[in-house]
Amino acid sequence: MKGTVGELGEFGLIRELTSRLTTTPAVRLGPGDDAAVISAPDRRVVASTDVLLEGRHFRRDWSTAYDVGRKSAAQNLADIAAMGAVPTALLLGLIVPAELPATWATEMMDGLRDECQVAGAAVVGGDVVRGETITIAITALGDLQGAEPVTRAGARPGDQVAVTGWLGWSAAGHAVLARGFRSPRAFVEAHRRPEPPYQAGPAAAALGATAMTDVSDGLLADLGHVAAASKVRIDLRAAAFDIPTQMADIGRAVGVEPLQWVLTGGEDHAIVATFPPQRQLPARWRVIGEVQAPSASPQVTVDGNLWAASGGWDHFGAED
Amino acid sequence: MKGTVGELGEFGLIRELTSRLTTTPAVRLGPGDDAAVISAPDRRVVASTDVLLEGRHFRRDWSTAYDVGRKSAAQNLADIAAMGAVPTALLLGLIVPAELPATWATEMMDGLRDECQVAGAAVVGGDVVRGETITIAITALGDLQGAEPVTRAGARPGDQVAVTGWLGWSAAGHAVLARGFRSPRAFVEAHRRPEPPYQAGPAAAALGATAMTDVSDGLLADLGHVAAASKVRIDLRAAAFDIPTQMADIGRAVGVEPLQWVLTGGEDHAIVATFPPQRQLPARWRVIGEVQAPSASPQVTVDGNLWAASGGWDHFGAED
Repeated sequence: MKGTVGELGEFGLIRELTSRLTTTPAVRLGPGDDAAVISAPDRRVVASTDVLLEGRHFRRDWSTAYDVGRKSAAQNLADIAAMGAVPTALLLGLIVPAELPATWATEMMDGLRDECQVAGAAVVGGDVVRGETITIAITALGDLQGAEPVTRAGARPGDQVAVTGWLGWSAAGHAVLARGFRSPRAFVEAHRRPEPPYQAGPAAAALGATAMTDVSDGLLADLGHVAAASKVRIDLRAAAFDIPTQMADIGRAVGVEPLQWVLTGGEDHAIVATFPPQRQLPARWRVIGEVQAPSASPQVTVDGNLWAASGGWDHFGAED
Repeated sequence: MKGTVGELGEFGLIRELTSRLTTTPAVRLGPGDDAAVISAPDRRVVASTDVLLEGRHFRRDWSTAYDVGRKSAAQNLADIAAMGAVPTALLLGLIVPAELPATWATEMMDGLRDECQVAGAAVVGGDVVRGETITIAITALGDLQGAEPVTRAGARPGDQVAVTGWLGWSAAGHAVLARGFRSPRAFVEAHRRPEPPYQAGPAAAALGATAMTDVSDGLLADLGHVAAASKVRIDLRAAAFDIPTQMADIGRAVGVEPLQWVLTGGEDHAIVATFPPQRQLPARWRVIGEVQAPSASPQVTVDGNLWAASGGWDHFGAED
């Protein structure tokens, strides 16, 4: 396909975009009508919306259109999984400049579609509008399959804190890209295309998780939301985090303590949950800390100390 | 509340916005977690997304923030009703410039909330991002309550075409505003704040509607989608449309044939549906035409003739 979005026109673009989509048995009615119809066997539907802007959430010189699609979908589908639900559908609100190559839009859509397939979902509808800044507004839907939603509010003192998925890889990849490099490839890839552990969300619900969230803003920040919603304190153990050798190498090269990436890097969309104290967890879950009784702030600590947002230990917190 | 969105900050703004919301029994979990949870008693959920941009879909000098909220919600909730479903929930992706007065965002949210209440729904979640252009990305959800979704594809030759709601009022109001006037007030209000007949959607499904859509792009354009999806032709009767006296007056004042507004004006979000030939329809439905067997284009005619997009009869169509 040649030409720009403007040359293709609104209806031409919509035709190109929808022609690339795949479906699932949950899709009762796909794109093309006033609305889509999706199965909700649980009689409840889980729904989440995120907006991504070029320049703020992605850069065309760092990521291909396909990767932007994968990442945009992943971010939303991870929110569904983090409630303990199985993603079913995704709706897209897309703003594109007239001068954008039409292939950028179609490749982005390929990425959305493929990430949906990984999660078992499908793109079921959307809207395309012309505007100045590429903007991707996504709503993801999911089904709880009879489980109760696992919110951020259920963590109890004594609960284990456990995580599954990648931590700090996207942030390390970002550090590499920001310095003009394109390798180590594994980290750059992790930044461009996160791999949320979708299945872990419903699995955690089945394991009796008391609270859960996905790590989108950074482990400490997202556990801060859990601590606030659950009215508890959370303490992590620094020794529980294995720093991969290559991540340590990047840290040395760019002068960053790699634990900083692990604790504060977002966008890998790992899933972190709290579980009752005695609960045996499968090997994919790494126990990283403990829920404690509420006290004065700080709410989330590492080995009892505050970790500074700027990296390293906070000068105003207790020192080791 | 004083100050700009930038001064309030992201979390401050989200707090202000969510504090204004109301809920319904269908909302199992509202804003503040990774995702919302909404009842879907039918075991299917109806979902639709639209994006509105300042300058393209609304103007701050023509509409208050509250009206923009009402209109943005109405546009999406009407899509749900036009499937024969009852709206249940709305999610908001909001892009705001840092220098926007925070009251604009909160008043817009009040409008979203109130229009949701009219339709029986609630705002359940969203995302707020800073950007250059005010952008409102909405996803509406709904429940079919056991009915089959009424698509655009079911119209059959012989069916009656009937409409309920307002036609041409928003377009006439737009014509008034575009010429710098603020009255007649009823039409300006209709442009600023449409009143979709939400209840008519599920009612039409119960009456056996064979196809249905809401009038967002204009009656002829939207019936064109029905004709294409159903592979039929549709003929309307010009005499079936009553032109209100005040609309005729505006037409004379601005030099526009008012039937043009009725046939091509969008944004009133009337609901148009096709029904089996003998079906008795309640008085709120006005029969405006008939579904006919397919033939070569044009697919939608008025008294057998093509109506030109530019207003009046098309020079290339058959003449009266």
